[in-house]
Amino acid sequence: MTITPPALSVFETLESEVRSYCRSWPAVFDRAHGSRMYDEDGHTYLDFFAGAGALNYGHNNPVLKRALLDYLERDGVTHGLDMATTAKRAFLETFQDVVLRPRDLPYKVMFPGPTGTNAVEAALKLARKAKGRESVVSFTNAFHGMSLGSLAVTGNAFKRAGAGIPLVHGTPMPFDNYFEGRVPDFLWFERLLEDQGSGLNTPAAVIVETVQGEGGINVARPEWLRALAALCERRDMLLIVDDIQMGCGRTGAFFSFEEAGITPDIVTLSKSIGGYGMPMSLTLFKPELDLWEPGEHNGTFRGNNPAFVTAAAALNAYWTDGQMEKQTLARGEQVAQALRAIGAEHPELGAQYRGRGLVWGLEFTDRTRASAVAARAFELGLLIETSGPESEVVKLLPALTITPEDLDEGLRILARAVRETA
Amino acid sequence: MTITPPALSVFETLESEVRSYCRSWPAVFDRAHGSRMYDEDGHTYLDFFAGAGALNYGHNNPVLKRALLDYLERDGVTHGLDMATTAKRAFLETFQDVVLRPRDLPYKVMFPGPTGTNAVEAALKLARKAKGRESVVSFTNAFHGMSLGSLAVTGNAFKRAGAGIPLVHGTPMPFDNYFEGRVPDFLWFERLLEDQGSGLNTPAAVIVETVQGEGGINVARPEWLRALAALCERRDMLLIVDDIQMGCGRTGAFFSFEEAGITPDIVTLSKSIGGYGMPMSLTLFKPELDLWEPGEHNGTFRGNNPAFVTAAAALNAYWTDGQMEKQTLARGEQVAQALRAIGAEHPELGAQYRGRGLVWGLEFTDRTRASAVAARAFELGLLIETSGPESEVVKLLPALTITPEDLDEGLRILARAVRETA
Amino acid sequence: MTITPPALSVFETLESEVRSYCRSWPAVFDRAHGSRMYDEDGHTYLDFFAGAGALNYGHNNPVLKRALLDYLERDGVTHGLDMATTAKRAFLETFQDVVLRPRDLPYKVMFPGPTGTNAVEAALKLARKAKGRESVVSFTNAFHGMSLGSLAVTGNAFKRAGAGIPLVHGTPMPFDNYFEGRVPDFLWFERLLEDQGSGLNTPAAVIVETVQGEGGINVARPEWLRALAALCERRDMLLIVDDIQMGCGRTGAFFSFEEAGITPDIVTLSKSIGGYGMPMSLTLFKPELDLWEPGEHNGTFRGNNPAFVTAAAALNAYWTDGQMEKQTLARGEQVAQALRAIGAEHPELGAQYRGRGLVWGLEFTDRTRASAVAARAFELGLLIETSGPESEVVKLLPALTITPEDLDEGLRILARAVRETA
Amino acid sequence: MTITPPALSVFETLESEVRSYCRSWPAVFDRAHGSRMYDEDGHTYLDFFAGAGALNYGHNNPVLKRALLDYLERDGVTHGLDMATTAKRAFLETFQDVVLRPRDLPYKVMFPGPTGTNAVEAALKLARKAKGRESVVSFTNAFHGMSLGSLAVTGNAFKRAGAGIPLVHGTPMPFDNYFEGRVPDFLWFERLLEDQGSGLNTPAAVIVETVQGEGGINVARPEWLRALAALCERRDMLLIVDDIQMGCGRTGAFFSFEEAGITPDIVTLSKSIGGYGMPMSLTLFKPELDLWEPGEHNGTFRGNNPAFVTAAAALNAYWTDGQMEKQTLARGEQVAQALRAIGAEHPELGAQYRGRGLVWGLEFTDRTRASAVAARAFELGLLIETSGPESEVVKLLPALTITPEDLDEGLRILARAVRETA
Repeated sequence: MTITPPALSVFETLESEVRSYCRSWPAVFDRAHGSRMYDEDGHTYLDFFAGAGALNYGHNNPVLKRALLDYLERDGVTHGLDMATTAKRAFLETFQDVVLRPRDLPYKVMFPGPTGTNAVEAALKLARKAKGRESVVSFTNAFHGMSLGSLAVTGNAFKRAGAGIPLVHGTPMPFDNYFEGRVPDFLWFERLLEDQGSGLNTPAAVIVETVQGEGGINVARPEWLRALAALCERRDMLLIVDDIQMGCGRTGAFFSFEEAGITPDIVTLSKSIGGYGMPMSLTLFKPELDLWEPGEHNGTFRGNNPAFVTAAAALNAYWTDGQMEKQTLARGEQVAQALRAIGAEHPELGAQYRGRGLVWGLEFTDRTRASAVAARAFELGLLIETSGPESEVVKLLPALTITPEDLDEGLRILARAVRETA
Repeated sequence: MTITPPALSVFETLESEVRSYCRSWPAVFDRAHGSRMYDEDGHTYLDFFAGAGALNYGHNNPVLKRALLDYLERDGVTHGLDMATTAKRAFLETFQDVVLRPRDLPYKVMFPGPTGTNAVEAALKLARKAKGRESVVSFTNAFHGMSLGSLAVTGNAFKRAGAGIPLVHGTPMPFDNYFEGRVPDFLWFERLLEDQGSGLNTPAAVIVETVQGEGGINVARPEWLRALAALCERRDMLLIVDDIQMGCGRTGAFFSFEEAGITPDIVTLSKSIGGYGMPMSLTLFKPELDLWEPGEHNGTFRGNNPAFVTAAAALNAYWTDGQMEKQTLARGEQVAQALRAIGAEHPELGAQYRGRGLVWGLEFTDRTRASAVAARAFELGLLIETSGPESEVVKLLPALTITPEDLDEGLRILARAVRETA
Repeated sequence: MTITPPALSVFETLESEVRSYCRSWPAVFDRAHGSRMYDEDGHTYLDFFAGAGALNYGHNNPVLKRALLDYLERDGVTHGLDMATTAKRAFLETFQDVVLRPRDLPYKVMFPGPTGTNAVEAALKLARKAKGRESVVSFTNAFHGMSLGSLAVTGNAFKRAGAGIPLVHGTPMPFDNYFEGRVPDFLWFERLLEDQGSGLNTPAAVIVETVQGEGGINVARPEWLRALAALCERRDMLLIVDDIQMGCGRTGAFFSFEEAGITPDIVTLSKSIGGYGMPMSLTLFKPELDLWEPGEHNGTFRGNNPAFVTAAAALNAYWTDGQMEKQTLARGEQVAQALRAIGAEHPELGAQYRGRGLVWGLEFTDRTRASAVAARAFELGLLIETSGPESEVVKLLPALTITPEDLDEGLRILARAVRETA
Repeated sequence: MTITPPALSVFETLESEVRSYCRSWPAVFDRAHGSRMYDEDGHTYLDFFAGAGALNYGHNNPVLKRALLDYLERDGVTHGLDMATTAKRAFLETFQDVVLRPRDLPYKVMFPGPTGTNAVEAALKLARKAKGRESVVSFTNAFHGMSLGSLAVTGNAFKRAGAGIPLVHGTPMPFDNYFEGRVPDFLWFERLLEDQGSGLNTPAAVIVETVQGEGGINVARPEWLRALAALCERRDMLLIVDDIQMGCGRTGAFFSFEEAGITPDIVTLSKSIGGYGMPMSLTLFKPELDLWEPGEHNGTFRGNNPAFVTAAAALNAYWTDGQMEKQTLARGEQVAQALRAIGAEHPELGAQYRGRGLVWGLEFTDRTRASAVAARAFELGLLIETSGPESEVVKLLPALTITPEDLDEGLRILARAVRETA
């Protein structure tokens, strides 16, 4: 595929320098459907990024689209602050029936403002309020958002520097496998907690991702997560699972922590919870933590009702049985095989792959290779991103609804991009 | 109108205690159009709150609705991260042609995540980065948002307490008329700045609302704003106008600061910028402040393309000439007359009213009266809110597109509610 | 007097650039007695600085010297940590009998480490612990010390910048007469406290000097101090009087707040409490505030027993009757007359003087004049310092024990220095 | 020895509850000489605590006493702020000739206020200023002082809680042997530094004690210190050695870091630097770090000239040759033998001992035993303290000038106390 450099002028002259993805993918996109995006020059792209995990059901999923158009056409409430609406009730009831009850999860549901970082801010506030302590433990290479509360528990030095103030009240601990097995799990964390002279401010909570997406597709083992949950309980710290990117089925089960069999105290959801890529987020917590006063945390767009409509439609369409989970695990196996083959084809690259469900990472010995591969993949019509502190990992995040054929096509392009970036 | 208590069960059992508006307005809303909302029991409400200013063009405005439906039907990109899209380009070009150029405003445009607090967080980060200082001055009774950065410059003690950590790096100064003319404007602020022994950490920026909506409809005079802008320039502080609630025509002109003839260094927009009540926000700044590195501030829902579509449609429909501004000022005069009449009818209430454009406040000597009035208004079919630190001010925030007849009807209900809450 | 530049070599080559007084007074001092210091070249200086108020009883006061030598000769405990010693008991009993009981002051006595800043750190810790809040209000141009807790409530921008971290948890309020009568006292402070939307973090305490020595000899009126004490009580804030420089008789009475008739919750003493210029400090507080756990605040040199000996000797020698207070007020009147005469002699200088007891300041229209006067005074054999944020005030701080003749001589040198710096 | 409960009344009624040592040692001490203290009831105590290391030359050492008395008698300057004095010059020259030059140490000398915590505050300020970063790394079980800057890098949870504000800008790392060899040295620290996604704020400096006295007599190996110094250099962090308790010969050499062959960027000294137990402290740093502006850090008692006199006398008496170091190591060997014998006598106690020079710790399996031993030792006439986060270590800190006979006597009392606390 030959791509003519698009006319980016207004983006270049008017939009801030902060823009990023449009630099890696210099096209002007116009339409999208399922796993395909189309630019204004008629090029088609296979999307292995899926809105950074916000499009688990693909672009403009027809089932959700129908529900959305119907709602808009009949003048359903679009903007409802946190007023009770029929759309919100339908979502809440569906979420309870399809998600919470079958999993025996006791959570209360909070609408904290429709972005991930807002869900994290609400989670951190609540944890601090509940425990009366300021400190929160996060993990190396964590990513939780860009507002000051979330940024303080995010690992990336470049993003942290943007704060313009010292980020405090957070302490990083080693994520699973940070020392590649050389150090027993939680040795450092537990010792700091038990030693009255350690200097660690007693944490109100621990915030963790089960798979670190931005951090380089670092996968926590179920036993590590269980040990963490046990440590939190033993030491009176709340466990917050940030499931914004890994929830909504990305790893197979609806919640990514289900496999480990743990019940976090607080859970954040965003990205794909709305189903159609529209802003929505939730903070879930055990009922005894529902210590909020009315209006203590608010936000204008908490009641993004069109997203409630597509959210409920997505739950009804995909989560009333175990089909979606099975399919995701099967597609994941397909990815794993392809990545294994890439490694086998190029033993000199020292390629390592890792993942769960439909989130996978591919790392090379040469830390600049991932970016080259992604750039070549774009030229070949595949949208694929890198992650990790040095962008050293190719990150595969296709829609969960991708067909085996599309998945195969994308994996073949990836293999070719690896081959052609020697 | 008699209202049967609605079946709120799932809201009460599943949704967090943090919910607020649904408590004042115990109805389950189903549809909305223009200045009317309809609950599932068939009651109609006249809306004088307009999504806290997010619905300046009314609920489900038909012009915007058409554009939105067309876009969705043709599978325009819904979720685009910060990729270049045709919808985003159309918005940027329209914003430039309709808003920035005619006003000779040189701003660069940043999409910081689609909520107001995210726009404020980006503004504060940028100001701190640009000046290399941490401290930001805000004003008494300011409201800027709920994430930690924004909350630190928000005045409300109840909301601040929710942070769970000490909120620092901000210092409040008296807003216009805080001492009812007893103290010269900026006497305290300027003295602190010029006195090398004052103990004030030199601010990177000042953040201000031209009219404090949440703070009690406190209206800054143009000359006060000009003096503030001059002070900022003289003392090397950036001036941030948070125009999230007062921008997009709420006070008459598109930007609320136009009347004062100032050009802030940074401006935040959200709420009505999307036009249709869908999440969207912008941070605008002078080109020399565009110091962001690519991706230094990001967020999943920056590219809420359906909102870009309705945003562009709204600008094209309402802001290509001076009609909207004129109309808003005329409607505002209508409100002022009605409030004046309410005061005259009940001299014993000591009613004070104040406002600009279509944002007005009505305050009584008895500080509990406003809540009683709003409650009675709801029973009479009018949605109206209170504001101020003690909810002591009735706040009028109708859609800018409200008809004179609807406006009159609402004002008559308000007058009746005042009468009936003796 | 002609002064040969002294051999400062080791000071210049080995001592840090941070040294300060030795720059204004380029002599190498060898001996001292009463109000006189002698350098190694045989020059004599009249001392109007008295160790920044640490030498209220003059240099090497013979009464205290005798007590000290006796103690050292008999091998009394020199260093006692916070062990009980006979010297400490004698001091405590004397302090109780001579200072606390006659004034009906109920304070408990803490030995917090022998420097002023340590006494302030202990006071702030205790106030925060007692109230469970972080914030402390200080005043414009306050000076409380150089360690991080004290520095955060100190006004001077230059000294604050030395912290290397943002100084937070403190908010400055205008000291008495900051606006020269244009603004009612405490208007701003009280309004911030009563307004639930003001953005002020509720303070645990207020820390104040009755006369700001470093800040420019700013004298708080008794009625202002009484209003402050009343405000603190009304608003549940602890009142801390930092009497480190103004206590021990500097303003006449033993405590500088006695004149106002207030009883602060916490008082800090240092500088002259040891009597002989040796490090010692105290933090006093009402018994109900004695919430310390054993050892919760400690320090190696809390038990500087030689200072306890001279401290007790000073109290016994000077404070068992009202003689010292009367004499200080009389000497103060002598100073006031001389300053008045200087002003009258040079009407063009716009000289303003202010003070209480034996602390006085002289300010000129030309803000550089004070430094010139002090420099000329040194050449004429008078040690005198400047203060204020721009060193714009000549500061008179002679020993309380100075003879009328020495005082007169110094005042004549001062007048000459003013005359000769035109 | 039978001890009559002393009359502690004024201590109990007037002194704050914060007092600590006087609770363990309920005697009223009157005189002291060498390694003996005498209470007012005629009891004699052998002192194995030596003012927490402030009395390395014993109580009221006659050589220093003579110099002090001479100085006081001839009216040498007692209190000199930071003016140049002959006493200060003599100290500086002696310090240069006896301490710095022979060791080829290039340090500038700062007098930061005469307590240890003030020296640490100055060191931290300077490091932050030099590097333009806020964060400082400290170690588990570190002790650096009680003012807010020092407390933030101190490990003890009980003392940290006294701050009343969240202590931030510090991060603890594991001290040597924290994991008893299970984890490679600096694995965690170095990984955090090299990983751009670790979440560690880049430190300006690392502050360390070579032997943690308060923390439980934890002895860092020379190779660990060398690796730390190398890490600091490699990663552009300043190395601060807090030698307040371990310097001045406590471990053998004058500076405790000499054995490791490293040259820290900044060194703090206090406690025994004055020689006679009078308040004095120093902050030393490499000349290129002397970035202070004149007066940027100050303090009233920086010029405690009597302490300069005894400090110079001590250096001249004990440090002009290698005698003191040799003797300390020999005495240390005597201690080690005795502790070994105690362990051998009671194999069931699992006693562990550790130390260097004349600082030793003895730990038992039963963590309450140390306090019992110290209490019994007091009854037997030996002053000995415990340390460690749970006071689980008996701490031996005799004067360096103790005679072999006195040392032997004390060690025998200790052995007896162990025996009698079964």
